[in-house]
Amino acid sequence: MTETAIPTDVESAVLEACRRAKLASRALATATTTTKNDALYAMADALVANAARIVEANAVDLERGRANDMSPGLLDRLELTEQRIAAIADALRYVATLPDPVGEIRRGSTLANGIRLVQKAVPMGVVGMIYEARPNVTVDAAGLALKSGNAAVLRGGSAAASSNEVIVAVLQEALESVGLPKDAVQSIDAYGRPGARVLMNARGLVDVLVPRGGRDLIQTVVRDSTVPAIETGEGNCHVYLDASAPLDRAMAIVLNSKTHRVGVCNAAETLLVHRDAEDKMPQILTALHEAGVTLHVDDAIADLAPPAVPTVPATEEDWATEYLSMDLAIRMVDSIDEAIQHIARYSTGHTEAIVTNDIDAANHFVAHIDSAAVMVNASTRFTDGGEFGLGAEIGISTQKLHARGPMGLGELTTTTWVAYGDGHIRG
Amino acid sequence: MTETAIPTDVESAVLEACRRAKLASRALATATTTTKNDALYAMADALVANAARIVEANAVDLERGRANDMSPGLLDRLELTEQRIAAIADALRYVATLPDPVGEIRRGSTLANGIRLVQKAVPMGVVGMIYEARPNVTVDAAGLALKSGNAAVLRGGSAAASSNEVIVAVLQEALESVGLPKDAVQSIDAYGRPGARVLMNARGLVDVLVPRGGRDLIQTVVRDSTVPAIETGEGNCHVYLDASAPLDRAMAIVLNSKTHRVGVCNAAETLLVHRDAEDKMPQILTALHEAGVTLHVDDAIADLAPPAVPTVPATEEDWATEYLSMDLAIRMVDSIDEAIQHIARYSTGHTEAIVTNDIDAANHFVAHIDSAAVMVNASTRFTDGGEFGLGAEIGISTQKLHARGPMGLGELTTTTWVAYGDGHIRG
Repeated sequence: MTETAIPTDVESAVLEACRRAKLASRALATATTTTKNDALYAMADALVANAARIVEANAVDLERGRANDMSPGLLDRLELTEQRIAAIADALRYVATLPDPVGEIRRGSTLANGIRLVQKAVPMGVVGMIYEARPNVTVDAAGLALKSGNAAVLRGGSAAASSNEVIVAVLQEALESVGLPKDAVQSIDAYGRPGARVLMNARGLVDVLVPRGGRDLIQTVVRDSTVPAIETGEGNCHVYLDASAPLDRAMAIVLNSKTHRVGVCNAAETLLVHRDAEDKMPQILTALHEAGVTLHVDDAIADLAPPAVPTVPATEEDWATEYLSMDLAIRMVDSIDEAIQHIARYSTGHTEAIVTNDIDAANHFVAHIDSAAVMVNASTRFTDGGEFGLGAEIGISTQKLHARGPMGLGELTTTTWVAYGDGHIRG
Repeated sequence: MTETAIPTDVESAVLEACRRAKLASRALATATTTTKNDALYAMADALVANAARIVEANAVDLERGRANDMSPGLLDRLELTEQRIAAIADALRYVATLPDPVGEIRRGSTLANGIRLVQKAVPMGVVGMIYEARPNVTVDAAGLALKSGNAAVLRGGSAAASSNEVIVAVLQEALESVGLPKDAVQSIDAYGRPGARVLMNARGLVDVLVPRGGRDLIQTVVRDSTVPAIETGEGNCHVYLDASAPLDRAMAIVLNSKTHRVGVCNAAETLLVHRDAEDKMPQILTALHEAGVTLHVDDAIADLAPPAVPTVPATEEDWATEYLSMDLAIRMVDSIDEAIQHIARYSTGHTEAIVTNDIDAANHFVAHIDSAAVMVNASTRFTDGGEFGLGAEIGISTQKLHARGPMGLGELTTTTWVAYGDGHIRG
């Protein structure tokens, strides 16, 4: 997404799509929950009914991916089978079961002058999504946007363009079948990167932009958009073993945070160990090694590793790296404050955990960590919309504005103040 | 604020100020309400004690302003007297009486697996303010940021630089007198516009930017900042007279919305009149004229004006203008939906009012207006943090992300999820 001139026909086509989305969003804003749920079930049914057609389009993307030497991991994320399509359809049906956030009264009171004031949740309007090579996100984003009363303009990346084109066409047919405008879900994949850049600057037509993907994509969107964007998903998460951490609890939380699923944003990437917890390290290092984790350690930790446990010297770069792999950076600290300072310097503000049996230490950690989530004696892996009881999530915000942490349907709404008077004027 | 190269010494000085603010913000985040209130009272007392010194510095700004042909209105906003300083100090004392938003539990539950989860309000960290020629905003912003646990980095514009320099020095002495770091309130006025530009791009050091001032300033900040910014205060507000609007109520609300205070963002700028309410227009137009309002009208409204009431033909530009003066654009519409469409096209999303005695019309208007506030039978002038019971406000957000409408202390906080387990791992 370098700064090159945008062809005027691309600009006008994408802006026109955004305008149509804005118009459609007004219909969605006043659609009843019943209508929206009908649409979600119709979309799910349509995906299953058209699975063969979608798999066929997906094969074109896969073939192009293989020709372009796409990695096996990305190819796997790109691939759709009839079974996967059924699962994606079920996710839409699940969204239908979630409470509708639109219309929720957030605050309200009768003012001293008699005006009845309510602050109620309303849809954002048009949600833009920019993501990479994952056709399931197309359906997920469309479903979450719809349930929260928003129109979605989707830019899914060229690698999945054929799949997304068919999927969006199928979703649009389903929308129309329940009387909702098909412009409620649109793809701008046909306009490539210049189209994405137009979307990022469609201020006034697009109300919020949610990027999902790798660090580069997210940083580009956040840096270059004039549309308000939400920074999501980068997770250099830490586990801190306090002096008082019991061995069994430390062992369980460190292993789970690191190895339960390594490619996700809430996996731990660095372990900080209080000097007085060093007696637990030989066993923990051994368990991590046996689980297949490569240990990037400072000198003090290296000295604690049993002869059978190989380690690699950690560099400055290791502290700042979100590995997303079976690697863990480990550092010894002299105090809880040294751990907090390390986290303040290197964390992306996603999730940090403390393992401790010391109340003061737990309180001190919670008070001084500036991240979306802080776990006291629990795995970093719990930072997740489903685990937190928010239902499906559209991403995990690592910024402070609007939403922080897992973003569910409620985070796709804004609010309006409505004041009911009987001729009130201000004196 | 044109795109010119930023001197490296300015860049390093402003970034260093932001770094010091970030450090200070950690002390503020854990400061008790008592300490923060002590600081607010000490700041208020210090302003009063140093009033003569502040007035002296302000005289330098006023003299420069007169030499630069500053308008009488701006000179009035710039001027500080001992009496005005006393009022500004009282505003700080009022902030001390407001509830502390930090630590408020927003949501929480015990999850199915036994984890105790809370979402609690925490300070943003560092709040950047960019504003124009109003030294009272320096104190206001510093006080609101402090009470909500945030450090403030202030860019108040060259016109008020001498006043702001002394005010910030006085506030810093007061902070230190209660044991808080002076870096909690800093001015970067010395670094001019290049300094403002560095502040706008200090992503990672500054957590939120709140611009206050004219349209150009706000749009520049919103367009060019990589720090998340909140669009505030632009108000092209509408009053719609429905067919069923009773005359007395219509008269009171139109006059109050337009003439109560014309230079503010919640003043009405356009009146939309349902064709079936035309019988009320001669009296309303006469009253507006007698109140000193210049009437910019379409042909249908012009035909309704009594001979003694002069009107000016409205142009396309009038519909889009936030006059901030004794001018009002007036248009006749054939239906409530035509009024809603007009508002959708021209509104800045601040406040719109309907005057009606028809329940269906009121509900339809509320459901279809996409603005921060909707007034049913009440003046647009009520959109205000104080009127809404939020206490002091730092601005009125016209965007949808994070905050919409009046922003009080609560809107200067973000949240953290804290999960308390007893060794919980994810299965």
